[in-house]
Amino acid sequence: MSEETRATQPRSASDVGGWDDAADVVIVGIGGAGACAAIEARLAGASVLALERFGGPGGTTAASDGMMYFGGGTALQKACGFEDTPDDMFDYLMAACGPDPDPELIEPYCEYSVEHFHWLCEQGVPWKPSFFPGGHFPESDDGLVFSGNERVHPFRDLAAPVPRGHVPRTRGPAGGLLMQKLTAAAIGAGARLQASERCEALVLEDDGRVVGVMLGSGSGERFVEARRGVVLSTGGFIWNDEMLRQYAPQLLRCQHRVGTPSDDGSGIRMGMAAGGATLGLDSGDVLLPLYPPAALKRGLLVDRHGQRFINEDAYHGRIGEFALDACDGDVWMIIDSSIDERPQNTPAPIAAVEDTIADLESALGMPTGGLQSTLSAYNAAAQRGRDPLFEKAAEFVAPLVSPPYAALDLRMESAHYGAFTLGGLQIDAWGRVRASGGDPVPGLFAAGRAASGVAKRGYSSGLSLGDSSFFGRRAGRKAAASE
Amino acid sequence: MSEETRATQPRSASDVGGWDDAADVVIVGIGGAGACAAIEARLAGASVLALERFGGPGGTTAASDGMMYFGGGTALQKACGFEDTPDDMFDYLMAACGPDPDPELIEPYCEYSVEHFHWLCEQGVPWKPSFFPGGHFPESDDGLVFSGNERVHPFRDLAAPVPRGHVPRTRGPAGGLLMQKLTAAAIGAGARLQASERCEALVLEDDGRVVGVMLGSGSGERFVEARRGVVLSTGGFIWNDEMLRQYAPQLLRCQHRVGTPSDDGSGIRMGMAAGGATLGLDSGDVLLPLYPPAALKRGLLVDRHGQRFINEDAYHGRIGEFALDACDGDVWMIIDSSIDERPQNTPAPIAAVEDTIADLESALGMPTGGLQSTLSAYNAAAQRGRDPLFEKAAEFVAPLVSPPYAALDLRMESAHYGAFTLGGLQIDAWGRVRASGGDPVPGLFAAGRAASGVAKRGYSSGLSLGDSSFFGRRAGRKAAASE
Repeated sequence: MSEETRATQPRSASDVGGWDDAADVVIVGIGGAGACAAIEARLAGASVLALERFGGPGGTTAASDGMMYFGGGTALQKACGFEDTPDDMFDYLMAACGPDPDPELIEPYCEYSVEHFHWLCEQGVPWKPSFFPGGHFPESDDGLVFSGNERVHPFRDLAAPVPRGHVPRTRGPAGGLLMQKLTAAAIGAGARLQASERCEALVLEDDGRVVGVMLGSGSGERFVEARRGVVLSTGGFIWNDEMLRQYAPQLLRCQHRVGTPSDDGSGIRMGMAAGGATLGLDSGDVLLPLYPPAALKRGLLVDRHGQRFINEDAYHGRIGEFALDACDGDVWMIIDSSIDERPQNTPAPIAAVEDTIADLESALGMPTGGLQSTLSAYNAAAQRGRDPLFEKAAEFVAPLVSPPYAALDLRMESAHYGAFTLGGLQIDAWGRVRASGGDPVPGLFAAGRAASGVAKRGYSSGLSLGDSSFFGRRAGRKAAASE
Repeated sequence: MSEETRATQPRSASDVGGWDDAADVVIVGIGGAGACAAIEARLAGASVLALERFGGPGGTTAASDGMMYFGGGTALQKACGFEDTPDDMFDYLMAACGPDPDPELIEPYCEYSVEHFHWLCEQGVPWKPSFFPGGHFPESDDGLVFSGNERVHPFRDLAAPVPRGHVPRTRGPAGGLLMQKLTAAAIGAGARLQASERCEALVLEDDGRVVGVMLGSGSGERFVEARRGVVLSTGGFIWNDEMLRQYAPQLLRCQHRVGTPSDDGSGIRMGMAAGGATLGLDSGDVLLPLYPPAALKRGLLVDRHGQRFINEDAYHGRIGEFALDACDGDVWMIIDSSIDERPQNTPAPIAAVEDTIADLESALGMPTGGLQSTLSAYNAAAQRGRDPLFEKAAEFVAPLVSPPYAALDLRMESAHYGAFTLGGLQIDAWGRVRASGGDPVPGLFAAGRAASGVAKRGYSSGLSLGDSSFFGRRAGRKAAASE
């Protein structure tokens, strides 16, 4: 049996000779979700032991850009002159996080987003109250950005478009700063944090209640009692090939894993073995980072038939998803000499340069007529500033009529598609892990990418750190209040 | 907790006071897979007890059309004048049953297909040695048909196109006859078959070995020892809404469930609770039965942008899959007055009739220019008998130039999409259920739609009965030979 899938079967409490340590709430994995759970459990009066497998706290949060998806009228949104409401945020997320997103999670996430942002400020996280007008990540130290599909078709017509990507102010990626603040807050609140402690299994009573964890293995086995609950905040499974093959094989085609090796699904597997149900293990976010530069939004994305499949100004997570799901990963971007740009964040080899679209089509080995028909229909409408087929925003619509024409190769083998998993343990609005019948598994909580969260399929940047911290806090509080 | 997800947690053998009954091999569910397992286990010298929840043997096999996917040069193929080899069959299935199909299952399925067909003949199943030239199911009592994508693009270029759909000879759907023969053979071989016995849980030793099953519940609990193994042949889960919501929510959109209420996932859940891994629970076959009549293959299938997305002569399982996955279920068929036909097997309301494509496009609420561009490109190439974009077979390619033009509404709300689940317990080539690490769960076997089989995603008619019977036999034999 390989390392990555070694046994995660729970241990029986009756086989535990004695506890080596104990706390009211035991937290497995100290990334964003785990740190927030630790703070809140401690503030709710519980003793807290938080365990991290690697050399220190951080997890995938520390390696991230630190962006968090908040809304409903946060202080930062107001400072930048934007009006938002929990209802608009709810409408957007219900449209963008599906199909079939979970209102039970999305509702409180929107309802309490202003409070949650305020709470993060109180933990010492700094934000610059300025708006970056481009998308989908600031190329500056601005604090607020449109981080998803809010202002692109069809979402702009389903909810008032408001920017909700909040980025902590720092030099470079902000995830490290975020974890520094959260870790300090957890320690300040009196939580015990222990690094280099690998949790190998949950410990269960005969009635299925989770009452502790087993650390180490073989002769090094030790047992920690969790008097009120265990919180699994261990991350997703984009670094576990075997789980990917089993649940989400399409993600194996993406060249760039968004995450850290800690995302090997260990907590998901322990939770499943304890009777926890899962949701959306087949689902991942697939990013094709075409922009910046924004000029490329004027190009045309086409499939192997030479047909378009999406508005090119869409969020790069939506473009990646469509490229993989609807086009089987075979896509190109067509540009002309008026767009002399290349993507900054992914290779995009020039597949062909020709003086006519007919020659380009032929050079790409596309069927005769498809690309030509696409271009002539696009150009005819673009003359009038319109994109009736895919409703790209007018500012990016202009006829492509300046030869030579080029095709950028954005196939999965050529471009750097990023991917991470969205599925995980099924939780309720308080981070309680559900059994397959819907009832909670007693004593078991999860948050962050070990759980299925706000984004069930579609994605917008900042939702992972957003729901990790939000439901991490809730799981910590609820665990502390458990009997 | 609802009926459909009631607890399936295994019972501990140490809690079983005594066994109420015993057999070497216990089979749960008597459809095609269970009956074949019973026959082979018995012939291998094991005592066999096969249990069926409903009033008698049958399951979904009895309710089916009885078609089975065989090849490699069966007697029936030869009698109809077709040459086939296990290699061609393998090439086709590896291309059509993916992405990422499992060669470990497909290889023996092809290698021993001739033998397996012969074995079914020996059980008394009759076949008429005649070929039906249409697709994908005989409209006659012919025994052989192209039941998948064998002769359509792109598969016709990946493997020599040979018909492999074998249909037993009888009046009406042949599934009942098939089950009658297999049940008689099982009884004749000395297997005990018991109806109206509901298996509620597996019984496990402390080391995880499956040693029996629990029947009934509460005061009616009884325990049956399985000295060599338990075979789960309980069907898929298309009749379990809660599992669909959890694993394959897109299938909930299909109006027609292909299966019987026995397909509620009970065996999959029992297997999972005993440590069995699953594969492809998100995956289903989605059928849009557009044909007969074949004349409709001359029409154009378009999405909400007015663009085509598939060769219209593809297998109806492939059309359904693309319609749902790539077009989000919003598709129409465009015909002209030279194609005055309607699908026989699904409603397809006329959405609009107009004298020009521009008016049709507008009447359908499609964006301006998309459908017009599609039609003019298609017609230009079709003048020369070609369909360069999607490579529809030449016999179905003709310009659509005879007004009035009509659009048939094939959206998911309007047409009858059929669906059944393809995912299930992960098995090896001998029907042994795998634990997440890859090793078998000792004493546990599965076959049929309780397992993930030959078709991991793509489908061709006859594969379910085909692999149910094939791996059912293997599971029975292997269980009988276990210690």
